[in-house]
Amino acid sequence: MQVLWLFAHPEQRSLNAALRDEGVRTLRELGHEVEVSDLYAMGWNPVVSAEDFGYAPGDRLVVGAESKRAFEAGRLSADVRVEQDKLVRADAVIVQFPLWWYGMPAILKGWFDRVFVKGFAYGVVDPGSGRTLRYGEGRLAGKRAMVVVTAGAGSASMGPRGVSGEINEVLFPLQHGTFWYSGMSVLPPVVVYGADRVPEDAYESAAKELRVRLSSLGEEEPLPFRYQNGGDYDEDLVLRPELAPGRKGLAVHYKKESW
Amino acid sequence: MQVLWLFAHPEQRSLNAALRDEGVRTLRELGHEVEVSDLYAMGWNPVVSAEDFGYAPGDRLVVGAESKRAFEAGRLSADVRVEQDKLVRADAVIVQFPLWWYGMPAILKGWFDRVFVKGFAYGVVDPGSGRTLRYGEGRLAGKRAMVVVTAGAGSASMGPRGVSGEINEVLFPLQHGTFWYSGMSVLPPVVVYGADRVPEDAYESAAKELRVRLSSLGEEEPLPFRYQNGGDYDEDLVLRPELAPGRKGLAVHYKKESW
Repeated sequence: MQVLWLFAHPEQRSLNAALRDEGVRTLRELGHEVEVSDLYAMGWNPVVSAEDFGYAPGDRLVVGAESKRAFEAGRLSADVRVEQDKLVRADAVIVQFPLWWYGMPAILKGWFDRVFVKGFAYGVVDPGSGRTLRYGEGRLAGKRAMVVVTAGAGSASMGPRGVSGEINEVLFPLQHGTFWYSGMSVLPPVVVYGADRVPEDAYESAAKELRVRLSSLGEEEPLPFRYQNGGDYDEDLVLRPELAPGRKGLAVHYKKESW
Repeated sequence: MQVLWLFAHPEQRSLNAALRDEGVRTLRELGHEVEVSDLYAMGWNPVVSAEDFGYAPGDRLVVGAESKRAFEAGRLSADVRVEQDKLVRADAVIVQFPLWWYGMPAILKGWFDRVFVKGFAYGVVDPGSGRTLRYGEGRLAGKRAMVVVTAGAGSASMGPRGVSGEINEVLFPLQHGTFWYSGMSVLPPVVVYGADRVPEDAYESAAKELRVRLSSLGEEEPLPFRYQNGGDYDEDLVLRPELAPGRKGLAVHYKKESW
């Protein structure tokens, strides 16, 4: 497979960087092709601006509409096009970061803000039916995505009743709202808990888990998110009452609970 | 009251900017002092780096530890200190942004990444008991925070069973994991749904809702998040089994369900 490894950590001598090296080496040993986007090393600009769109500065910027026009006309800024090309080439994307304030570091959030433009990752319309393709369908369907994350919190604290929120619920905006929205299948995340105080043997066990997970990257069962087009949602995109009856919360968007 | 209004949108002729102007004017008419941090206009740098910490480049950067040392020694970079001072002065913080990929624009996420350093917004230890103060306690306790957000999704889609995820669950990393974590009380968000296609009268109703909400900024009941120090969580930070028995998901962290 062709794999894109997105990496967002400011320090090359970190636990994160060691795991990235381990992961990239593992994938290459397994015969995969790997491209790495090391956002800090690239000096990636995470801030959406009119300049992304080759855009007349006097005009009023409507980000969605403008990004779609620029995408379709090939006028997106060069750094964005390079990243889109990497993603188009990839069969799988690994997104690795330290969890900062329960989300991605800004440099990584801004990769999605700038690269996942309208017409490319959302607002993709099926020419036959006129339907908007999303949640399991779209231009990126068929690709796999997996988060690799280090968290300061402990595993119990990020469990189903932990104060931090369960890890998949905390990652819902990325895993469901971004990857699945744009069509990608999402593998369960690889999570290193208590990462502020990882002893030597815990590093070894994290590295081992990562190797195991990467070795089944092409075959592992994705998170069972519901398709928008599967009949599970009504025309207002609300889950039909006969499914997960009487329940609410993010877990209802899984065909079966995975945690 | 002293209010800090954080604003993150690239276009000054946007719905967001109109609502900001409306909000700031309303607060001033009510007699409040308002400071505005318009992150795009300021050219805010959202990327955490060693330079934030007045740090020797040859050393290995451990973000948490290094940020705490720099904070305590007054060595944080000047732009970060200016924002911290605004926050310290404020009784309430309004955080306004368009929801991009179900989260904050990168420029705003990076405000929290850089400004909410260890020793200031987390890792604050009570000198008497030695306890770490968080989730309702800490240096920022007593302040109020409120999100004002525009979303492309419709209100049903962001309701309790909507495909986008319920708005407060999508905002959990910010409202609970950031504001409440650092001690701040969190007011229910002001949300403008379907913001890609707001007709004139919908703008008027959004502006009116905002004015009403701002007029009770000091008195409104906050979201009823549980205190970590209230006895609701065990020593692993897991909710005790007798509370919300048999349930899981982010809603268990509310003393009573608010939605």
